[in-house]
Amino acid sequence: MSSNWIAADWGATNLRVWLIGPDGDVLAKASAPAGIAQLENDGFEPALQELIGPWLGTAPLPIITCGAISSRQGWHELPLTYAPCSTDARMTEIKTNDARYRVILIAGVAQQEPADVMHGAETQIAGLLEQNPKFDGVACIVGAETKWVRISAGEICNFQSIMTGEMFDALSKHSLLRHSVGTAADWDQAAFDASFEAVFDRPQLFATRMMPLYAGPMVSDDYPAARVRAELTGALMGIELAAAKPYWLGQNVSIFGESRMVDLYARVLGQQGVQVTIEDSDVLLLAGLKKAHQTWLTEAA
Amino acid sequence: MSSNWIAADWGATNLRVWLIGPDGDVLAKASAPAGIAQLENDGFEPALQELIGPWLGTAPLPIITCGAISSRQGWHELPLTYAPCSTDARMTEIKTNDARYRVILIAGVAQQEPADVMHGAETQIAGLLEQNPKFDGVACIVGAETKWVRISAGEICNFQSIMTGEMFDALSKHSLLRHSVGTAADWDQAAFDASFEAVFDRPQLFATRMMPLYAGPMVSDDYPAARVRAELTGALMGIELAAAKPYWLGQNVSIFGESRMVDLYARVLGQQGVQVTIEDSDVLLLAGLKKAHQTWLTEAA
Repeated sequence: MSSNWIAADWGATNLRVWLIGPDGDVLAKASAPAGIAQLENDGFEPALQELIGPWLGTAPLPIITCGAISSRQGWHELPLTYAPCSTDARMTEIKTNDARYRVILIAGVAQQEPADVMHGAETQIAGLLEQNPKFDGVACIVGAETKWVRISAGEICNFQSIMTGEMFDALSKHSLLRHSVGTAADWDQAAFDASFEAVFDRPQLFATRMMPLYAGPMVSDDYPAARVRAELTGALMGIELAAAKPYWLGQNVSIFGESRMVDLYARVLGQQGVQVTIEDSDVLLLAGLKKAHQTWLTEAA
Repeated sequence: MSSNWIAADWGATNLRVWLIGPDGDVLAKASAPAGIAQLENDGFEPALQELIGPWLGTAPLPIITCGAISSRQGWHELPLTYAPCSTDARMTEIKTNDARYRVILIAGVAQQEPADVMHGAETQIAGLLEQNPKFDGVACIVGAETKWVRISAGEICNFQSIMTGEMFDALSKHSLLRHSVGTAADWDQAAFDASFEAVFDRPQLFATRMMPLYAGPMVSDDYPAARVRAELTGALMGIELAAAKPYWLGQNVSIFGESRMVDLYARVLGQQGVQVTIEDSDVLLLAGLKKAHQTWLTEAA
């Protein structure tokens, strides 16, 4: 029972794998920009083989895999589990062309109303509960969407995804703002704070604050890219925090995900008097995948 | 003085030209997808020559041109006029490589605070005032951005551009929603109305209404593309109308621009009890360019 296995996070943009030893130690890790958005249907298994090839021997390695790989656009679509639900991993082994590994996918969690879906966040939440079984509060998981997840009595009660990262990317790369928004190094914290507050207080101002980010540099020398980028981020987070208030108000909030944005969420929630804890996203992910692996071993036994 | 001339609207995505006779009649028209977003700096004049070539003789034809062609990304950047200002066209003749025409650019109008800019809308507004000199109210000009312009005593008082069209394009083509938003033929009017009202009443809901447009089709058979497209449009217009309320409340609103959206703006403004008039966008544009041509002849005389 105690042999090597692979933990995998296979999402929209990346495939990340960790080789885990019998004692739960990470023996090696690898990643590739081989997300489901980059691959066709017949490209999934070759991408996986290429990444984990050096780790393969004769005994079949189980690969416990979470992420959008089990969604409609992925390798194999699994039925979704509907919240409220436990964080027990619902796993399905799928057919592969290679006997050196076994691919076990973890199903995503969905919600009927408002319609929502997560693939991978459910595994991080399982990890959060593994580390802190009595956690009662809200997880704020920052990624292409930010997911606000209410957790109580070991269950995912309900959740709300807000496309802040998606909107930032779409606007900064594919709108008029692409001329003025600069690069990730451009940042003006005071401009972020002012933009956040304005939109958080009056969310409709989100609509009026886009054009100045395009026109500002034309009419004033006082609109460098650092200001544009920070104001766009502030406006997006301002409307998000206003919308997500039913999730965070009066709650313990555990934040994890993409690191730079995590600090901004901690900042604005802290300013609202919210009790915030920042967790390491990958630590939670691996804890969730280890728990799933234990479950799989038990069920297989 | 009474000879042919060319009216031109040269914007981000298209170049449109009209050959105008001595009596102001349109003798011919042509257009090409030769906007400033498609062209490099040395491509402007060849694109123009190709389009108007058949109309050129020996006498130099004046081309009165409005649009983003006079912006920083255009052929020749003109200084902006700052609102409040009259609608008199501020024109500059630029150097060309061909004696068969003369290119006269109309400068755009800008605003310092909030930072904003228009290129072309000022010419349509001049046309609106040419047709209705006593107009006192607000123009709602629908395009890639929607421009709300307060007009009084023959002047552009102030204005606010809202990137509704830009945001729709960015989200429907370059976000997760690209999988579900369908084509222009997909439309569900009741879904639009419900989405508009929800966000107009509580603008922060704009942030929460994006994810169901992606996840809805995964969790329910009741989310066809027509619903997704209409709800996205409704949410964008809901937050816009909430933000633009200081412009339209209690005003006469003249709406013109891209035809399908014009009807939606007229619908939602009408539901708020606003007195709305729909104008033909090209009629106003040509009226404004004719007035500019007259001014140019007078100044040249």
